[in-house]
Amino acid sequence: MSPSHADKPLGLIAGSGALPVTLAETQADKVFVVALEGAAEVALQQYPHITVPIGCMKAAADALLAAGCLDIVIIGGIERPNLEKLELDEGGQWFLEQVSSGNHAGDDKLLKVIIAYFEMRGLNVCSAQDYLCGQTGRTGPQTKHDHIAHQPDIDRAIEVASVAGSQDIGQSVVVGRRLVLAIEGPEGTDGMLQRLRDLSPEFLGTPEERRGVLVKLPKPQQDRRIDIPAVGGRTVELAAAACLAGIVFEAGGTLFDDFDSVVALAEKKGLFLLGLDRQN
Amino acid sequence: MSPSHADKPLGLIAGSGALPVTLAETQADKVFVVALEGAAEVALQQYPHITVPIGCMKAAADALLAAGCLDIVIIGGIERPNLEKLELDEGGQWFLEQVSSGNHAGDDKLLKVIIAYFEMRGLNVCSAQDYLCGQTGRTGPQTKHDHIAHQPDIDRAIEVASVAGSQDIGQSVVVGRRLVLAIEGPEGTDGMLQRLRDLSPEFLGTPEERRGVLVKLPKPQQDRRIDIPAVGGRTVELAAAACLAGIVFEAGGTLFDDFDSVVALAEKKGLFLLGLDRQN
Repeated sequence: MSPSHADKPLGLIAGSGALPVTLAETQADKVFVVALEGAAEVALQQYPHITVPIGCMKAAADALLAAGCLDIVIIGGIERPNLEKLELDEGGQWFLEQVSSGNHAGDDKLLKVIIAYFEMRGLNVCSAQDYLCGQTGRTGPQTKHDHIAHQPDIDRAIEVASVAGSQDIGQSVVVGRRLVLAIEGPEGTDGMLQRLRDLSPEFLGTPEERRGVLVKLPKPQQDRRIDIPAVGGRTVELAAAACLAGIVFEAGGTLFDDFDSVVALAEKKGLFLLGLDRQN
Repeated sequence: MSPSHADKPLGLIAGSGALPVTLAETQADKVFVVALEGAAEVALQQYPHITVPIGCMKAAADALLAAGCLDIVIIGGIERPNLEKLELDEGGQWFLEQVSSGNHAGDDKLLKVIIAYFEMRGLNVCSAQDYLCGQTGRTGPQTKHDHIAHQPDIDRAIEVASVAGSQDIGQSVVVGRRLVLAIEGPEGTDGMLQRLRDLSPEFLGTPEERRGVLVKLPKPQQDRRIDIPAVGGRTVELAAAACLAGIVFEAGGTLFDDFDSVVALAEKKGLFLLGLDRQN
């Protein structure tokens, strides 16, 4: 699981958010960045880089190979593109043909096609977790707030998240009093947490008596090299605003902007943060 | 499947909406109504009736038996009660004990406990469909708008609705371009359709080019005597406002306020309305 070509620069295909920046920092002078246009942080421009539109997979692969990369990591947020309006190069065109010809219904299958393209070009797609070991979450309770009282909701949410994940619907589920309050759709985890606040108050807890849990897990069939669940400060803020009692994640299988600061924020906001050990 | 005690009054436990009124009309002078407080339409007060709070199941059963009812129908909308704040009589107390003791996690299981209570009291809980045959939907396309172009979305939505239903999550699913756009939670079908409009426009169609389908189906394991999917004019209005292409329902297994007027509205709004034949 360790980087296999340490003498070559790591290729970084970077979407939005702080994670690509954190990852680039860990690689210091041994990184080449493909910044996705309109998504990647400006801070990445301090590294050797090229900026490409999301539909230009060939340009990305060409630049990575020219820079001498063998291992690459695809990381950061990507707005799902409107396939009909995408500007495509040859690589993007190949992607669209794969997607149109087959039954690539969900996000998960789309992402597997992207991995397949870069591997076809001779690049080795790696897990971000291999480079961000300290930011993937630890096992067990991380704050002093009680999760035991919420175990029935946690169990039910894990069950539903597994089913939703296996259907490639979404990674996140909210359960309160054993009732499914929300399943993530294309609005994303943040959007799902925001809409919780529109629910009738009887379904929600209060700041004094928090209720309901957010469970965010990788999909069972998911390739761990792409679209790893991410939990950040904003996730905690929105979960707190919806009066949830806590957040459950997969230890070692989740990407945190900064694990310790997310834990500290959850502690302060009164939420439990529980890392599941599911990888052994 | 036909009413078994035609000489006795039909007992009607009535929640909100037009359906209980329609059903009472079909029974003319052979009906006794238990109007749920705060929910049932005032129009029902023209029939022999009693008004009870939702937590008073014993009062409801006593009144139905005193009125000579043997067959009863439970119909209309019910706001999920806050179990902690409910005023309960002996019957409601029994319900709460059943719910608290077992793993009655979802709506479906709660409703089965309600049926069990009335059957325990010697009442025969019947399907609303037996009394509303003309309002349960016909097989096949009901408007002239094309559904064939949307068949992949329809197939995927049926698949996801079956999974969501078997998990007792919700009856309704919206799929567009084979992507799950929404799964119903406790906000109900109307709330789900309303939140579709908050999605990024790239996921939605336009009034000129409608896209995405609403599939609303009974849960696979559901007792067909309670919580039958309902489709009304408002469902069509909200689906149209979200620029969906059409609505799929189970023919014979859905309750329409007035089937012909729902069809006429869908026709006018540019939506297909497709009845699935799943009961044979």
